[in-house]
Amino acid sequence: MSSKTNQGNYFEDFSIGQEIVHATPRTVTEGDIALYTALYGPRFAATSASTFAQSMGFERMPADSLLAFHIVFGKTVPDISLNAVANLGYAGGRFGVPVFPGDTITTTSTVIGLKPNSSGKNGNVYVRSVGRNQDGEVVLDYIRWVMVNRREAVEEIGEASVPELPAAVPAEELVVPFDLTGKAYDTALAGSEHLWEDYEVGERIDHVDGMTIEESDHMLATRLYQNTAKVHFNQFAQKDSRIGRRLIYGGHIISLARALSFNGLGNGQMVAAINAGSHANPTFAGDTIHAWSEVLDKIEIPGLTDVGALRVRTVATKDLPCADFPYKGEDGKYLPNVVLDFDYTVLMPRRQG
Amino acid sequence: MSSKTNQGNYFEDFSIGQEIVHATPRTVTEGDIALYTALYGPRFAATSASTFAQSMGFERMPADSLLAFHIVFGKTVPDISLNAVANLGYAGGRFGVPVFPGDTITTTSTVIGLKPNSSGKNGNVYVRSVGRNQDGEVVLDYIRWVMVNRREAVEEIGEASVPELPAAVPAEELVVPFDLTGKAYDTALAGSEHLWEDYEVGERIDHVDGMTIEESDHMLATRLYQNTAKVHFNQFAQKDSRIGRRLIYGGHIISLARALSFNGLGNGQMVAAINAGSHANPTFAGDTIHAWSEVLDKIEIPGLTDVGALRVRTVATKDLPCADFPYKGEDGKYLPNVVLDFDYTVLMPRRQG
Amino acid sequence: MSSKTNQGNYFEDFSIGQEIVHATPRTVTEGDIALYTALYGPRFAATSASTFAQSMGFERMPADSLLAFHIVFGKTVPDISLNAVANLGYAGGRFGVPVFPGDTITTTSTVIGLKPNSSGKNGNVYVRSVGRNQDGEVVLDYIRWVMVNRREAVEEIGEASVPELPAAVPAEELVVPFDLTGKAYDTALAGSEHLWEDYEVGERIDHVDGMTIEESDHMLATRLYQNTAKVHFNQFAQKDSRIGRRLIYGGHIISLARALSFNGLGNGQMVAAINAGSHANPTFAGDTIHAWSEVLDKIEIPGLTDVGALRVRTVATKDLPCADFPYKGEDGKYLPNVVLDFDYTVLMPRRQG
Repeated sequence: MSSKTNQGNYFEDFSIGQEIVHATPRTVTEGDIALYTALYGPRFAATSASTFAQSMGFERMPADSLLAFHIVFGKTVPDISLNAVANLGYAGGRFGVPVFPGDTITTTSTVIGLKPNSSGKNGNVYVRSVGRNQDGEVVLDYIRWVMVNRREAVEEIGEASVPELPAAVPAEELVVPFDLTGKAYDTALAGSEHLWEDYEVGERIDHVDGMTIEESDHMLATRLYQNTAKVHFNQFAQKDSRIGRRLIYGGHIISLARALSFNGLGNGQMVAAINAGSHANPTFAGDTIHAWSEVLDKIEIPGLTDVGALRVRTVATKDLPCADFPYKGEDGKYLPNVVLDFDYTVLMPRRQG
Repeated sequence: MSSKTNQGNYFEDFSIGQEIVHATPRTVTEGDIALYTALYGPRFAATSASTFAQSMGFERMPADSLLAFHIVFGKTVPDISLNAVANLGYAGGRFGVPVFPGDTITTTSTVIGLKPNSSGKNGNVYVRSVGRNQDGEVVLDYIRWVMVNRREAVEEIGEASVPELPAAVPAEELVVPFDLTGKAYDTALAGSEHLWEDYEVGERIDHVDGMTIEESDHMLATRLYQNTAKVHFNQFAQKDSRIGRRLIYGGHIISLARALSFNGLGNGQMVAAINAGSHANPTFAGDTIHAWSEVLDKIEIPGLTDVGALRVRTVATKDLPCADFPYKGEDGKYLPNVVLDFDYTVLMPRRQG
Repeated sequence: MSSKTNQGNYFEDFSIGQEIVHATPRTVTEGDIALYTALYGPRFAATSASTFAQSMGFERMPADSLLAFHIVFGKTVPDISLNAVANLGYAGGRFGVPVFPGDTITTTSTVIGLKPNSSGKNGNVYVRSVGRNQDGEVVLDYIRWVMVNRREAVEEIGEASVPELPAAVPAEELVVPFDLTGKAYDTALAGSEHLWEDYEVGERIDHVDGMTIEESDHMLATRLYQNTAKVHFNQFAQKDSRIGRRLIYGGHIISLARALSFNGLGNGQMVAAINAGSHANPTFAGDTIHAWSEVLDKIEIPGLTDVGALRVRTVATKDLPCADFPYKGEDGKYLPNVVLDFDYTVLMPRRQG
């Protein structure tokens, strides 16, 4: 095989403290935003209308937080997860400045943990990835860990170095990229009259609607993010795999679930943090995604009275409506139709005056 | 079910004179225009090339009239037709200022008619919806009526109030958003040498070409318009419906038929009015759409000698070429392969000098 | 059939020296670029990031060379190849100024050759097509030839006039639209450390990755290019054809192969020339495309020490990985899984200092 093609990194190629500058920088445009709308149908007003964004104190309309996430994430795939067996989790994800059309995103990663698995065939790699815009401002800073194959199996697996992972991003680290002070927030245009005060910890919301995924949809999305993981694209290879089909990029489900969550969390205008996340089961073309959410925490943001945060768990399912809030079985394992368990923090206006 | 999710309005929630401000305002961009091109393949020069648009007196290239229609329409769905049984008709649609990239569209509706059906289970709701840009200028003003379920069936159905509907938008209400006075109109670049003078009332044109629709196509489109009608997206629910499949948004067929109509009506650069419209039969993924048109009227526009209007009926079919102009059977009912009967008015340059 | 619809030209409609101004001019936007990314997943840095493009001396980020090709090509279809039996080849394709968002492309063609086939039923038409931007600058100038049906078969087929075709675009005709002089070229961000010096004539590279094509994907692409060839879109008609299916536009495969070639030719930032090309076998939805390349020539560009050119043959296959470089059989014919043989020239930075 030509030495000019990227073989990706194997477990033994990673070392603690290693820094990786990822190719290819990516300018995000209004074209990407339109595609994001076509792919998921999000209706959050701040990322749908420049007038509404400006009424919230944005200079202009930002891209959806999760579009930024996918672009930052996509850059890391050729170096981090090309030989990954599984995408295991996320932690400590903090969104910084929003991405505006015209911004160019670059991602760098640092290896912060290595945990060889007892099989000797693979191990977990923990990376902290930081996406920055053309001015060097942090757009997103998050940790993920993936199980990566070794190039060659070993008998002595060596020491593990597992980083301490934050349970959730604390209030004082949340970045609020808009300013509602003295501004009228129009709940009619926003599409929901329910503000931060109206939610209670423990409250569960069935987002009702369902969305069926086609092969074209997820491949268009994943290519848009320049995510090169082979399992999403190559049916010729997948047909001989255990699963026999193309796997849908887990981030596609995150974005679908977030778009569905508008129906019940319509004022959760921006995502401020990704606290944790698990792709509980794989999804395939033809699956219909539903979602429900639970409010995990109501967070007051230091110094702000016009905006609060909700820590939310959004659970997505395939081919299973969510009126009964399906989650885990008695054995503590995810039910087979649960495909996503996403713990994140959204910013929501508070009642003023 | 959480009180925070939108259940949509039922027949008994509407009252004559009721005004509804629809969520979510939407900024239309060059990204939306590119997607519109990818979804339908339109070739009208005024909405394909900024140079051509400027040669017609536009400040810059406008979006296709029907992209504006879909955006304005999409806003109304969560409030008007989430519980609709059927989208029954359109009338009195007048396009105002074109939508240019960067414009933000907001829609408001007024209930102008209510006709309870004798079953006591549902009724027809007539709304006049107005889409405006960020400067408050009217982009589109149209009437549609839909059959909406009641929350609970009644025995006494009550009085009907049916508005008088205009048969067609009259010449003096047509807005011509360009000015060809003293300008050379390039029919070679426009792709058709046939101008307003060359059409005759009663003339019928087979648009020849056919376009097959895939599930991804119509779902991308309908999400782009933030139209949330469940029947278009949720195969898990649809599989148990009478029809068993996802229904394609009727507006998708309107746009396909209009794009196909380029072959025969290439100089019909902008749509000025929607006079009437009926989605005669449902369409599904896999259907191939053909179309034909009949010139219903040739309209002189008061004060203008460089532009005229053609009132056109465009009929779209599924899996049936249109050389024989299929329409209605001897019983006066639409043939089963006819899916759209669209009565609208296009603006077309006249021969000058 | 109405005289107002385009029947396309037949073999007898063409004459040597004939000039055709093609409809519909097309403004290329950031929306088109985003769609191009979503359709193929290209990762060449110059056309992915405005910062990177500027670091190479571009004023701003250009569109992918092949997006320009498809737009220029698409314009010619209604006049040249609507009645084509086969798209036979390309030659002498020279890219001029890049296409930037906002540029409007117009195409004109000149008939430079006519070769009636002995059957008397059709013949080969050679056209030189030139795409220009709104300032009249040449974007792309190329020759293609297609087999076109006659309107009526003849017994006397007449004389052939076959133009002399260049084997390859010579070094002195290559346009280099960027300037690396004195600039640091960042191979980490570009995604490949292999520069012009690192390639050898005869070297073959398996691009490894595979991409499965869906019906929606190729139809979205082909409509985006306003390419109206019926065989790509109309399943109702195609089901009765010999092949029974929609044919994928050959250019879609060219773009897929080029995107896959990033893995091994990542610094081939722009295409400067199309020397030859053959669509060896048809492709259909469901096919998985792989590609490999051979370096045919290393070209020094007169007067430039910072940039060189590689003449490359990229071969694409369907449902056949390319580790063994599949190409032609012992009979000299393309193997049945080979779908593209594309001979083109890319510009690549040289090692400096």
